[in-house]
Amino acid sequence: MYPNWILQRAYLTPLRNGLTYNGQTWTFQKLNDLSLKRARQLTALGIKQGDRIAIMGPSKPTLVITMYACMHLQCEMVMLNRRLSQAEIAYQLEDSEAAAVLIADEDVEKLPLHTTCHLFSAIEKSTESAIDITKEWSLNQTTSIMYTSGTTGFPKGVRQTVGNHQASATASVLNIGLQADDAWLCAVPLFHISGFSILVRSLLYGNKVHLYDQFDVEAISQNIIDGDVTHMSVVAVTLERILHTLEQKNAQASSKFKMMLAGGGPVPVDYLKRAHALNLAVAQTYGMTETSSQTATLANEDAMQKIGSAGKPLFFNQIRIAEPNANGEGEICIRGPHVTPGYIGRFAEKEVTIDGWLHTGDIGYMDEEGYLFVIDRRADLIISGGENIYPAEIENVLLTHPAVKEAGVCGIDDDEWGQVPIAFVVLKEQVQVEQIQAFCQKKLAKYKIPKEIIVTDELPRNGANKLLRRKLIN
Amino acid sequence: MYPNWILQRAYLTPLRNGLTYNGQTWTFQKLNDLSLKRARQLTALGIKQGDRIAIMGPSKPTLVITMYACMHLQCEMVMLNRRLSQAEIAYQLEDSEAAAVLIADEDVEKLPLHTTCHLFSAIEKSTESAIDITKEWSLNQTTSIMYTSGTTGFPKGVRQTVGNHQASATASVLNIGLQADDAWLCAVPLFHISGFSILVRSLLYGNKVHLYDQFDVEAISQNIIDGDVTHMSVVAVTLERILHTLEQKNAQASSKFKMMLAGGGPVPVDYLKRAHALNLAVAQTYGMTETSSQTATLANEDAMQKIGSAGKPLFFNQIRIAEPNANGEGEICIRGPHVTPGYIGRFAEKEVTIDGWLHTGDIGYMDEEGYLFVIDRRADLIISGGENIYPAEIENVLLTHPAVKEAGVCGIDDDEWGQVPIAFVVLKEQVQVEQIQAFCQKKLAKYKIPKEIIVTDELPRNGANKLLRRKLIN
Repeated sequence: MYPNWILQRAYLTPLRNGLTYNGQTWTFQKLNDLSLKRARQLTALGIKQGDRIAIMGPSKPTLVITMYACMHLQCEMVMLNRRLSQAEIAYQLEDSEAAAVLIADEDVEKLPLHTTCHLFSAIEKSTESAIDITKEWSLNQTTSIMYTSGTTGFPKGVRQTVGNHQASATASVLNIGLQADDAWLCAVPLFHISGFSILVRSLLYGNKVHLYDQFDVEAISQNIIDGDVTHMSVVAVTLERILHTLEQKNAQASSKFKMMLAGGGPVPVDYLKRAHALNLAVAQTYGMTETSSQTATLANEDAMQKIGSAGKPLFFNQIRIAEPNANGEGEICIRGPHVTPGYIGRFAEKEVTIDGWLHTGDIGYMDEEGYLFVIDRRADLIISGGENIYPAEIENVLLTHPAVKEAGVCGIDDDEWGQVPIAFVVLKEQVQVEQIQAFCQKKLAKYKIPKEIIVTDELPRNGANKLLRRKLIN
Repeated sequence: MYPNWILQRAYLTPLRNGLTYNGQTWTFQKLNDLSLKRARQLTALGIKQGDRIAIMGPSKPTLVITMYACMHLQCEMVMLNRRLSQAEIAYQLEDSEAAAVLIADEDVEKLPLHTTCHLFSAIEKSTESAIDITKEWSLNQTTSIMYTSGTTGFPKGVRQTVGNHQASATASVLNIGLQADDAWLCAVPLFHISGFSILVRSLLYGNKVHLYDQFDVEAISQNIIDGDVTHMSVVAVTLERILHTLEQKNAQASSKFKMMLAGGGPVPVDYLKRAHALNLAVAQTYGMTETSSQTATLANEDAMQKIGSAGKPLFFNQIRIAEPNANGEGEICIRGPHVTPGYIGRFAEKEVTIDGWLHTGDIGYMDEEGYLFVIDRRADLIISGGENIYPAEIENVLLTHPAVKEAGVCGIDDDEWGQVPIAFVVLKEQVQVEQIQAFCQKKLAKYKIPKEIIVTDELPRNGANKLLRRKLIN
């Protein structure tokens, strides 16, 4: 048995700062008190221990406290992505069979019409019911559920357990080290593993999280120059904005700033060089929802001589390349205590590992020193500003339009976002592409809407009639 | 599954220094290569994967390499205490049914006569047999076995698993932090958990161990003043010697030196104050063989305002006081992934925990902020220079002497060792106490031999005729 992280942290270091937001701070004791109160309020509203609960809200302290309250109640939190369309949210609520939806007042319009929900403002005003908080958690208990798409285009709800999160946090600390005054800047979404894992690490490490509800590049850059933080998680697009701002200010990262963890897809080499010139250590990482954050991370000391690599696995993790070709390239497989035990909902029965190995679908190789290089993403995955986009999901939407006969989606390079999706369609009746685009807007999160829709006579297919997405553009 | 620590560390940071001894250094790659070679040599000598193997030797690199070789072979290492008498060693070899004994040449005379063994020098010269090294370990696999006495006086072989050691090392890092250039001074015995846990942490953290085969107070103090180390494990008696040396030199600990971990019994308040004046951070810890090292540790920041406390539990651990009296004092009970699953040999069937809680027999209380205070040790335990001495074990030996009718042992305060044992005996025939002392010398480790043997007419007993050791001295 393992301790309830929030209780334990409040017990061990009650007076340490656990959260900073907009000039305000909360100690771990305060976070515990507030989240226990909120747990009692949720209980008064009918939420029971172990319920599966969907949550949506911007990255503000009330969201953190609501998450911690759910954790006190050992609820399985379905983390709703704020960028999703109503149709996408409806799918996740239906698939997860969430017993309740907790939503920030400002996000209520993102929900499908007539969704029963508890507004954060209502929860905060609720009466309280007495509860018996469990002081111990088990490794197999599901803490969070995050939806991720895949080859089929049907998003799958990935379970992330207490054991997964603990393994990830402890393996990470063995790689990047730890000091009592470390502080993590969080401007990545809390509904993604990149953001939620910052909260988990904060609870396990006793470190402060400095939370931003927007990617305010000016404020964030200033914090890196002379502020309170030592670490930050970025994706390529946010890293570039920070680099640009520092360059414009002719400023360097403060000497107390230690490291940026750069995930969510490859970081252009040029960015790494610019960061190096700004005294900004950037550690590239390879992680995914199914592995509760990092599997491999390139140490800063290796950043320049191993450019383009995602580094070596963290201590408790293993990586192997399945069925490598003559160049050693093959599917990246992952094993370790950080790998999800599986999915929920319609994919609950799907085996997530084979002999304990997660087959990622990503293609890569290990160099002679054992550094991982990821050369091609799974299932034609498009990564746009750190968000994963699966072509099949967009194609499924396009195919529901009455005028569309066939659809193929792929990513094209984009200076700002890394990649953006574009679509090729074969029509069965005349239609304006603007109409198809408007159709997509109702069904898809904004970042998934094809930036361009190209009408064509046929799509490239192989002998088995399988769509060859990589041949869409030639 | 978890990775083989030695392989994984050599893979992740091959060029980092893993061991320093006497001016020589070994990288993790080198330690791995040498231990793999030694594993092949052990295999050639007939040692099989998973065998239970007893090991004895001074704290020199060859012992570390032999231990790592046994770990590669997933052997269960019975760690023989070099201070034991032949009779005590014979008991442990018999009880553990060790398949082989590996012994440093200089220690061979410590073994019972006619013990079959492999000398380190012979192993080092052996041919090699090919082996298939297991890359993965399981949490339940036993890494080490250490004998500890108890109320019965019959030493029990405590299993310490991969999971126990990992939990201990990761919980410790969450408390004391970690930097890549941390280096641990090891002058505590490797056959004790205090020393072996330094090796485990080195493998998990990628930190250097600076090993000493003797407690050379001059060299060690100089290292703390201007050397390469950042951490050190001490017991009260060694701490005092270092303090004394620093005071005599009018020197302070170097600014890079971070912390001393002080275990093996209480540290006098005066020592803590003197350490404070020397800029030497001392963290008092409460640990035992059954918990693979620390359960609770007092953070340095709390050292002065919580003098005498052993601190709070490490993150993954829990402590509760069973059946507290009106003052909150009761038996200290421990739960967590660092608690041994049990014993071997004649105590293999003995349950070590009740509902998951290890009942230590130690008496203590938690203050209102949750800091642990240990006020009385289990089973009249005597702690002498960091070594545990159980009165029952000495009494058992005394009672085997033909002239002794009854025996009672307790500890008395000692300026140098903290405590030393003394004995009270009721005789059935005339005998010189020197003869009894000589008798003890054959049967007991030197530190267990009563410093004084007092002949008396009767021993203090309660109504049930139970010996009241605490009333021996009045």
